[in-house]
Amino acid sequence: MQSSYSYQQLSIFTKAVFLKIGCNDSDADIATRVLLSADMRGVDSHGIARLSGYVRLWEAGRVNTTPDIRIVHQTPSTAVVDGDRGLGLVVAHEAMKIAMEKAEKVGTGWVSVKNSNHFGIAGIHAMMALEKDMIGMAMTNASALVAPTFSQERMLGTNPIAVAIPAGKEAPFVADLATTTVANGKLEVASRKKTSIPAGWAQDKEGLASEDPDCVKQGGALLPLGGDRTHGSHKGYALSSVVDIFSAVLSGASYGPWAPPFPAYIPMPENMPGEGLGHFLGAMRVDAFRSKESFFENMDNWINRFKNAKPAKGQQRVLIPGMPEAEKEAAYRITGVPLIGPVVDDLNNLAGKLGLPALDQ
Amino acid sequence: MQSSYSYQQLSIFTKAVFLKIGCNDSDADIATRVLLSADMRGVDSHGIARLSGYVRLWEAGRVNTTPDIRIVHQTPSTAVVDGDRGLGLVVAHEAMKIAMEKAEKVGTGWVSVKNSNHFGIAGIHAMMALEKDMIGMAMTNASALVAPTFSQERMLGTNPIAVAIPAGKEAPFVADLATTTVANGKLEVASRKKTSIPAGWAQDKEGLASEDPDCVKQGGALLPLGGDRTHGSHKGYALSSVVDIFSAVLSGASYGPWAPPFPAYIPMPENMPGEGLGHFLGAMRVDAFRSKESFFENMDNWINRFKNAKPAKGQQRVLIPGMPEAEKEAAYRITGVPLIGPVVDDLNNLAGKLGLPALDQ
Repeated sequence: MQSSYSYQQLSIFTKAVFLKIGCNDSDADIATRVLLSADMRGVDSHGIARLSGYVRLWEAGRVNTTPDIRIVHQTPSTAVVDGDRGLGLVVAHEAMKIAMEKAEKVGTGWVSVKNSNHFGIAGIHAMMALEKDMIGMAMTNASALVAPTFSQERMLGTNPIAVAIPAGKEAPFVADLATTTVANGKLEVASRKKTSIPAGWAQDKEGLASEDPDCVKQGGALLPLGGDRTHGSHKGYALSSVVDIFSAVLSGASYGPWAPPFPAYIPMPENMPGEGLGHFLGAMRVDAFRSKESFFENMDNWINRFKNAKPAKGQQRVLIPGMPEAEKEAAYRITGVPLIGPVVDDLNNLAGKLGLPALDQ
Repeated sequence: MQSSYSYQQLSIFTKAVFLKIGCNDSDADIATRVLLSADMRGVDSHGIARLSGYVRLWEAGRVNTTPDIRIVHQTPSTAVVDGDRGLGLVVAHEAMKIAMEKAEKVGTGWVSVKNSNHFGIAGIHAMMALEKDMIGMAMTNASALVAPTFSQERMLGTNPIAVAIPAGKEAPFVADLATTTVANGKLEVASRKKTSIPAGWAQDKEGLASEDPDCVKQGGALLPLGGDRTHGSHKGYALSSVVDIFSAVLSGASYGPWAPPFPAYIPMPENMPGEGLGHFLGAMRVDAFRSKESFFENMDNWINRFKNAKPAKGQQRVLIPGMPEAEKEAAYRITGVPLIGPVVDDLNNLAGKLGLPALDQ
């Protein structure tokens, strides 16, 4: 069973929840906008389906809804921000604002964040830069679910990289990718359907290639982009490591296997070497490199040339990164966002618990 | 047949060639050091084996060995550098120096370069930053050999990303990866051995998956990291695109399918939208984020934890990016660099043509 809800409906519901757990009005607005951007762009796994997860983190005392988000170290083009255990959705937004203010002044701004938690989809933070004709970048580390090449142990999160690049007449280029072959959600879908998974997605608890969709649940791990050494998994591992180091070692957050988990029922790792989860945000003013006019003209030309690349036999078209998500968003603005039954039930249970009106009403 | 040559021997030979084609002493030194760093790190494809290729570019008038490398636009943290058709080996080195000078002053420095050509291995430029306790980054676009996901046409180069991160007592972390599943050289090896190649490495001229090692030579294409859509090739395509845009659209170099080729016998693309090849270099001072002491302590801990991750069944150890190359370099400092017969012959033909002593003498 699946029903659709307008952005307005979802937004009112979500904001009420964030207000109820103690966010001020402005933070509740930001958290709502950032969280729902995932649903609007078709990344269901990172949107409103996680709302009750954030509330559980708050109940467990792992999230501070009245944080004092502050710069603890800076230069003209850099800063380290302490998120004070605030919602990552809000902390990353504030950190990106700082990166953009620095870019305004000296061309680029780079902010590494500690003491935060999950920030929603990386892409939305990178896309903030577009409004100011800047290139935006966003990364975050996450709790360990991925095994480096040749490792049996889970050492890294799905550690995404997002890069948003403005264009002139064309829609912006928005890359937003986990540094794994696939998201864990794809294994869950296969598990429900009782089908096997392709080689290169995951390994079992001994570190051997597996096509069992339940292998990760049973102690295995997701694999870095590339899948195995023959297909370049050491490259995905390296990229994921860079995300971990930029987000957490540079800021003083907890890194590698010590990154704090999102589910509140999972105990925090022991002997954490840093504070909370880490993010890395960057902004580069386009006109810090060349005139906006020339950049936009070339960027439009780049996008058009790639859109018009001859498709492979049997394919319809070549996509520009961010195009499928932008098309989904345009459609959902009209049709509303489809939510599956279990998500609606979970949200309405949450509303009941918090004494708020249900989503359906 | 294979013989080994000391770094000293290779260096004297290579520098003589660069001097002969018109480089001044300092540029010849830089070009030699950058080019041979590839051989020393075991990346044979990008080292001295390409020396005669650079000379052919010079003969064809595509390389200017007395360039006026200059900043054409800048802010405190950024610059665009015009390489004046200089050797990429030298141009990228000078651009990285500029990035580091900016980082010294405002925390980070970011330089996009136009009007250059092949710069050797990306890693060596990123590693320049290590001497100053900075994180270094280097990217370059390259002539089109790679098909985006769903594309039949070659639109992108092997577009590498390198990130070098200093540590305290541990060796630095050095990621240096082409954004393809594999390098073209691996197909050439398979072709010589007359073996098939794994699925996910390349496609044929219609854009269909192929296991024929000659499929790229016959009009096919290499595939982005991931291999196919099921294994995340759209992520490799997105990363490769970011490299192309940062290196060439941001600087005004020629991008996508218009990137100039390395082999001098291949005609230049028609209607090039920019000047020459592009690079992107970055430097971030570690202490622009936190104290060097805390960073190095955490980075050493990161490296040790990953080195000691439990290996998968049947594997010996988990590697840190840059470790195999550093081990190779340490070995080659003692044993010399092995060169295969055809490379030695090619170098000695080159020496004869230029009136220089042969490598063997």
